[in-house]
Amino acid sequence: MTQSLDLGAAHRVRLDARAGKLTGPTANLAPGHVQANLAILPADVANDFLRFCQRNPKPCPLLAVSEPGDPSLPALGKDIDVRSDIPRYRVWRDGHLVDEPTDVRALWRDDLVAFLIGCSFSFEEAMIDNGLPVRHIEQGCNVPMYRTSIATEPAGPFHGPLVVSMRPLKAADAIRAIQVTSRFPSVHGAPVHLGDPSLIGIRDIHQPDYGDAVEIRPGEIPVFWACGVTPQSVVAAVQPEFCITHAPGHMLVTDLLNSRMAVL
Amino acid sequence: MTQSLDLGAAHRVRLDARAGKLTGPTANLAPGHVQANLAILPADVANDFLRFCQRNPKPCPLLAVSEPGDPSLPALGKDIDVRSDIPRYRVWRDGHLVDEPTDVRALWRDDLVAFLIGCSFSFEEAMIDNGLPVRHIEQGCNVPMYRTSIATEPAGPFHGPLVVSMRPLKAADAIRAIQVTSRFPSVHGAPVHLGDPSLIGIRDIHQPDYGDAVEIRPGEIPVFWACGVTPQSVVAAVQPEFCITHAPGHMLVTDLLNSRMAVL
Repeated sequence: MTQSLDLGAAHRVRLDARAGKLTGPTANLAPGHVQANLAILPADVANDFLRFCQRNPKPCPLLAVSEPGDPSLPALGKDIDVRSDIPRYRVWRDGHLVDEPTDVRALWRDDLVAFLIGCSFSFEEAMIDNGLPVRHIEQGCNVPMYRTSIATEPAGPFHGPLVVSMRPLKAADAIRAIQVTSRFPSVHGAPVHLGDPSLIGIRDIHQPDYGDAVEIRPGEIPVFWACGVTPQSVVAAVQPEFCITHAPGHMLVTDLLNSRMAVL
Repeated sequence: MTQSLDLGAAHRVRLDARAGKLTGPTANLAPGHVQANLAILPADVANDFLRFCQRNPKPCPLLAVSEPGDPSLPALGKDIDVRSDIPRYRVWRDGHLVDEPTDVRALWRDDLVAFLIGCSFSFEEAMIDNGLPVRHIEQGCNVPMYRTSIATEPAGPFHGPLVVSMRPLKAADAIRAIQVTSRFPSVHGAPVHLGDPSLIGIRDIHQPDYGDAVEIRPGEIPVFWACGVTPQSVVAAVQPEFCITHAPGHMLVTDLLNSRMAVL
């Protein structure tokens, strides 16, 4: 995708979201740029959550953490205001979803900390650039995601099962996908499992817990990556008095380049 | 294994073989050093075989090719005489095994070319250094090897099926093994297949075509690497008028370090 890389495209997406002109999903916007999951938490649980992310880098690869009360994220891009630059948010009170606004400036508090977490869009772009099929993109649906029997490493009140996303691949493509995604540890990295879903506690591969089921063709192996839904489900279980996340698929588009996420 | 690395150990193994003091297998001798498969062919077929290796680098990773008639291999180590420095050889005439001597100096000809091909010992050492189990080593037997339905790229008279070796691993270990062995393209590199053996034409995983069957435990996946037996079986099929190989397990121990074979 780098052949048509537009270095200002990410900034324009954010400005469109800020102006209310963009309220839909961000998939395929500003190709080549890193998109990020969002969790905003009050300071009293933010330190525990930071420790949780540090202990669970595969599902929770932290791209940036804001200063308390500061909505800018200079590490992720020019002029970012995390309260307005995402097309749609989810607001949670005591674990309950209470609103899905396009702007959270009116809800901002001096004690809030924003966590920006890597997203599979980055490694999927690398897979596509390598000629590997990504089934849910081919089928135009959401990636299938599953709660597993693999426990995360707890920190303070945060604990819960690892959530994984699944992409079916032929064996040779699975091997290549492991090589390709191993280069991207800051956006979930290498798979955590492949083959028999029951070994990680998935009862029915055709009944994902989140997202949509996709076709698994003869000769294909399900390959499982740690998923950014893990921190969301862990935060939801803790039911903090207040929390803001992005609405699914409505990500922060950063100035970082996917290609620069590769460690090798 | 590098903690006890002895840089002169490989040379001493070769001198012991040359003196007839070592006539057995070379596994675990001179730890840390690259061991190599041998094929010696007359010049009239050597160029075709060289092209065959170039086209099939995963089963036939060439470490060195001698000058015609020259038994030294300066790229692989000090003072190597390929006619005497391997503990045991196999001599083939018109495709038939005629002798298993410990020295082939008396058979040397001015038109012979020696091909030294990378061996799985190198990547198995890296697997063990990473804490990954290698079942046939645990069980004290040979690695199981299988003819597959995957064709090699032909060159001149040389053609035939890819032969693979198999190591059973849990999924997470298989993913790590792919990462580890991808670093070693000159010694077979990443696996070529994993999972269902029938997809590459293997009818019964418990009946290898070469080597020994190994236990595959519940939750383990068979993982398949391109194997250095491929060139041997391809050469055997051509039935050249004259050919010398190493006896199985009796390798050339080189001065090269396994750790230096890693590309990353």
